[in-house]
Amino acid sequence: MIQASNFFVTLREDGDPKEVASELARRGLWSSPRRNRDGQTTLAVEARSAVVNPRELETIPGVASVFTAGFDCMLLEKQPKIVAVGDQFIGEAPTVVAGPCSVESKEQIADIAGELAGGGVRFLRGGAFKPRTSPHSFHGHGVKGLEWMREAADTYGMQVVTECLSEEDADAVSALADVMQVGSRSMSSQALLNRVGRCGKPVLLKRGMASTIKEWLLCGERLLMAGASAVVFCERGIRSFDPWTRNVLDLGAVAMLSHGFGLLVMADPSHGAGRRDLVLPLAYASTVAGATGVMVEVHNDPGKAVSDGPQALTPREAIVLNQRLQDGFAVAAG
Amino acid sequence: MIQASNFFVTLREDGDPKEVASELARRGLWSSPRRNRDGQTTLAVEARSAVVNPRELETIPGVASVFTAGFDCMLLEKQPKIVAVGDQFIGEAPTVVAGPCSVESKEQIADIAGELAGGGVRFLRGGAFKPRTSPHSFHGHGVKGLEWMREAADTYGMQVVTECLSEEDADAVSALADVMQVGSRSMSSQALLNRVGRCGKPVLLKRGMASTIKEWLLCGERLLMAGASAVVFCERGIRSFDPWTRNVLDLGAVAMLSHGFGLLVMADPSHGAGRRDLVLPLAYASTVAGATGVMVEVHNDPGKAVSDGPQALTPREAIVLNQRLQDGFAVAAG
Amino acid sequence: MIQASNFFVTLREDGDPKEVASELARRGLWSSPRRNRDGQTTLAVEARSAVVNPRELETIPGVASVFTAGFDCMLLEKQPKIVAVGDQFIGEAPTVVAGPCSVESKEQIADIAGELAGGGVRFLRGGAFKPRTSPHSFHGHGVKGLEWMREAADTYGMQVVTECLSEEDADAVSALADVMQVGSRSMSSQALLNRVGRCGKPVLLKRGMASTIKEWLLCGERLLMAGASAVVFCERGIRSFDPWTRNVLDLGAVAMLSHGFGLLVMADPSHGAGRRDLVLPLAYASTVAGATGVMVEVHNDPGKAVSDGPQALTPREAIVLNQRLQDGFAVAAG
Amino acid sequence: MIQASNFFVTLREDGDPKEVASELARRGLWSSPRRNRDGQTTLAVEARSAVVNPRELETIPGVASVFTAGFDCMLLEKQPKIVAVGDQFIGEAPTVVAGPCSVESKEQIADIAGELAGGGVRFLRGGAFKPRTSPHSFHGHGVKGLEWMREAADTYGMQVVTECLSEEDADAVSALADVMQVGSRSMSSQALLNRVGRCGKPVLLKRGMASTIKEWLLCGERLLMAGASAVVFCERGIRSFDPWTRNVLDLGAVAMLSHGFGLLVMADPSHGAGRRDLVLPLAYASTVAGATGVMVEVHNDPGKAVSDGPQALTPREAIVLNQRLQDGFAVAAG
Repeated sequence: MIQASNFFVTLREDGDPKEVASELARRGLWSSPRRNRDGQTTLAVEARSAVVNPRELETIPGVASVFTAGFDCMLLEKQPKIVAVGDQFIGEAPTVVAGPCSVESKEQIADIAGELAGGGVRFLRGGAFKPRTSPHSFHGHGVKGLEWMREAADTYGMQVVTECLSEEDADAVSALADVMQVGSRSMSSQALLNRVGRCGKPVLLKRGMASTIKEWLLCGERLLMAGASAVVFCERGIRSFDPWTRNVLDLGAVAMLSHGFGLLVMADPSHGAGRRDLVLPLAYASTVAGATGVMVEVHNDPGKAVSDGPQALTPREAIVLNQRLQDGFAVAAG
Repeated sequence: MIQASNFFVTLREDGDPKEVASELARRGLWSSPRRNRDGQTTLAVEARSAVVNPRELETIPGVASVFTAGFDCMLLEKQPKIVAVGDQFIGEAPTVVAGPCSVESKEQIADIAGELAGGGVRFLRGGAFKPRTSPHSFHGHGVKGLEWMREAADTYGMQVVTECLSEEDADAVSALADVMQVGSRSMSSQALLNRVGRCGKPVLLKRGMASTIKEWLLCGERLLMAGASAVVFCERGIRSFDPWTRNVLDLGAVAMLSHGFGLLVMADPSHGAGRRDLVLPLAYASTVAGATGVMVEVHNDPGKAVSDGPQALTPREAIVLNQRLQDGFAVAAG
Repeated sequence: MIQASNFFVTLREDGDPKEVASELARRGLWSSPRRNRDGQTTLAVEARSAVVNPRELETIPGVASVFTAGFDCMLLEKQPKIVAVGDQFIGEAPTVVAGPCSVESKEQIADIAGELAGGGVRFLRGGAFKPRTSPHSFHGHGVKGLEWMREAADTYGMQVVTECLSEEDADAVSALADVMQVGSRSMSSQALLNRVGRCGKPVLLKRGMASTIKEWLLCGERLLMAGASAVVFCERGIRSFDPWTRNVLDLGAVAMLSHGFGLLVMADPSHGAGRRDLVLPLAYASTVAGATGVMVEVHNDPGKAVSDGPQALTPREAIVLNQRLQDGFAVAAG
Repeated sequence: MIQASNFFVTLREDGDPKEVASELARRGLWSSPRRNRDGQTTLAVEARSAVVNPRELETIPGVASVFTAGFDCMLLEKQPKIVAVGDQFIGEAPTVVAGPCSVESKEQIADIAGELAGGGVRFLRGGAFKPRTSPHSFHGHGVKGLEWMREAADTYGMQVVTECLSEEDADAVSALADVMQVGSRSMSSQALLNRVGRCGKPVLLKRGMASTIKEWLLCGERLLMAGASAVVFCERGIRSFDPWTRNVLDLGAVAMLSHGFGLLVMADPSHGAGRRDLVLPLAYASTVAGATGVMVEVHNDPGKAVSDGPQALTPREAIVLNQRLQDGFAVAAG
């Protein structure tokens, strides 16, 4: 149960607050006692301490009742644990989504797709509309880029994951993509979430650079409310103070969504680290922390990429990553 | 090579800036060109983009010379990759350091040590001097607690890792501990680093809550300069904005220290998450990201712990963690 | 000049690097020397250290040339320092923008507008479309709310500032507002910026919760490029780790935009602090730091507000704030 | 009253929860209702929403009782609002503490002191022991530097404020300084706080780079508990994500300590901004936000400073700042 707000455990008259607090701590829950006017005691329980089903706490000796404020994730709660995308499934075998930061040309995307598909990668990503910090930078080939990517994917039996940046483009993206992505810069743009959700497709929802887990969940809920057929969360690093990595990949959030809440969550170590030399270790670590897959930037010639080359893997590296994840991988002792 | 400052690649007169930049990008390096007055071109390379040995870049066609500002980690650079602690080694088989947040009594620490040692855990941690936010909280049993822990460790053939909080206590801690710990609240306290280093022991250096990787490295260098026999870094989560986890465990930093710089680094998922239900997934993920071991809080009865109970594992859980890490563990495919 | 990227000062052959570095430090600039292959020296200057016109540095004895990478703020650079909005001006006398978080009813907005206008406040704000974290919360009265606000403003001779949340609503908002606001949740939504800019109105651009100053500037540049007649920046607090204030109001950013770059910038202490008891001290401090005005939440009965009541000022408090700002205010010694 | 933990308002049987919540909101307090088993209602009140005396809330119609968990600031609560330092007072007329980052030589500190004192500045700061990130940097002249500073201060009738970095140096610093400073790198070093407090002097306590307001307050409480005669807090910027300023000066924290809690608090805009061009606007803004004074770095020749030159003011600038603050300053309208 996605219980994310603090809640209250009220004791029977003969309940011993220390004993009950001790039982809560055994379940990983921090609590603090409040005495009511009539001498009755309530323990305020911090939801942030562990994921539990509050209902189960009513069986603790000495507990009279448990009061929870409602939490707005009822649609996420009911979402299936496996999502079909074409002939593929997210939530079963680890998913690797790979492709270039930008779709640069018809040949480029076809080449990359061919190479990746030959190595078993089944999801193709690529930016057709590029959100760029400077208004004067290259912003992508738009619908034309999408069409190139669709064609490449169809040729090689892949599924397309691509970002929708604008309400205006939603229908065009929906027509050509298998999974619509909402990027971290747009995560909190509610109009866009409503518009993308309305397309009725599965959505990959990247976490905003400074969004709390709660805000992220509620944006997922919003997508489902608007009509999205499924939501797959994607952790891509939060903004922090260290200049040596572009972002901090928050694998605690991945573990919480996956193990705690039973949601589908992927990780994007390319943006999470912003350094190619950390992408593979973080990709493996992500799946161990609970991610159902990873999204990585790949370029056939990182040295010539129009954007983000230095964080891109080669197709070969992505294929090895995919292979190891598909096979299960052994972590060698010492 | 621990090259952490930006550096400069100067081209031959016939060097093609685009070609060289392309070669740098292939190695994961972001660069930007500068033209000198005489038309010569220099590429400023961002050290944050990847770990490379700048010397190797001189072999790229078109490169005349590489200029690096010195970086102050020469002692870390030369530190051995394996550290002996008693009959144990850090840097070989995964190290599990386990024990209670606070040493509460002679019996408590002996019980926990016995149980952990019986399950193969060889490093015992425990707080004798406790840094607490409020001056009115329990601050530990001090030297008496240390002696209890030493005795328990000797009985069961374990090594002791414990924090030194004060310059005044350094000799007492040094006399009783095998590894001296500098905590995250003290990481930037240079007088303490100097004093602890002078004891000549191996030191476990936790990362400060908001310390950059560079500051952390330099504190390690300071310990070696002061005389520490070895430094093992320990990532324990950085402070961020989300209230649902106590800190954000930065596994990108672990990967960088381990894979990038070849340093010994552990992770503390107990403080990193502050939630028991995330400790195990993050512990496994840490070792996959490059940690040579993990440090976890363990309590024989988390419900009765005087501090941090809700984030403590049981001894049984710590033993299973240790066993899986010692055996190597297979990550099952989907 | 909005020079925000690092730049390079190359010395004459007879230039003394220490002397030139010293001159740069006198101007507040951090620099570090690089030697070229031919022995020539370049000083890399950190733009983050101070705002200067790089051209002026060419007059320093020993300097041969200054090399700056282009920076993409040419439109901001040329924007006038005073913006006319109806019969009012932003950039002259301090501007107070006041009104309720949500437009709740026709009567409510009319009452508040009447009271504020009677006390000299000339800009009315109010949320018609409300961005709310939970999809199940109240989202505002939409266009109807906008019409009520327009009517209230016209009755009392006020200018309307209101947020545009969606590309779809841009024309409706443009038709009824005098200044279109882009909120912090949407700041990095480039499609929305393009669409709002196209309306050709002045835009109040709130800073994103985790946006850097550079990203914020570039979003302003984007608005101008798309057609906005003017951009007024608005600092509203960045997300940080302390739970006692909702955000951290970054008055250093206000000072930099105002004093350093000569841009129009306001501050929103209501969201910046999230606590009513800090709103007034921060409002005065903002104008002293360089803000050309403040935006505050006001409610005729904060106890009954449908949203954000506890951070709202009463109309009376807003009027006193406005009066003191219009009169210039003396800060008493001791 | 320094009430920093959430607290609970229990209603009479005939109390109307909506009415009481409304009254709380009028006082700036966010609350949320909890129903007990017997139908009685309690409102949980967020202390972070405003500073109030919980006792006063018992007069609200419908309120039965108010329950507050104790908060550990009883010594801070009782501290006088004005602190005598030699013939000077902190807490009355604005205090300007000025001086170089490092005491470089006997002549340097005497020159700066003479110039500052001639312009009315009465507090001299200067680093004798310097905390530096790299162990290989200049670490100050130590006790000799302190003696030079003492002599300069005595010659010109100034009070000395200087940092104590080490438990070992505490007595030496105490013997020569009028106010002992604990720096931001050491704020959470409890052994140092205990040792410095034991000297019985007034202490200037800088805020840690990532310390919460609550942690900061508790470190102040610890100093008083250890014997410090008074604590003056000093906000110096918290670490955040923007590379253009060194830190973010948190004037909301200044307003809260000053206006909310009635504590003595200063601001250090030199470190807060790390850019000379922002120091003066932020200094004035700080006092308007509630600071009882400012601490600024000054150098007679910033171009030659051994450390932090680019953020130092000239003595002349510091004198004008002091003069304007002593005179009270008028903020001109538009």
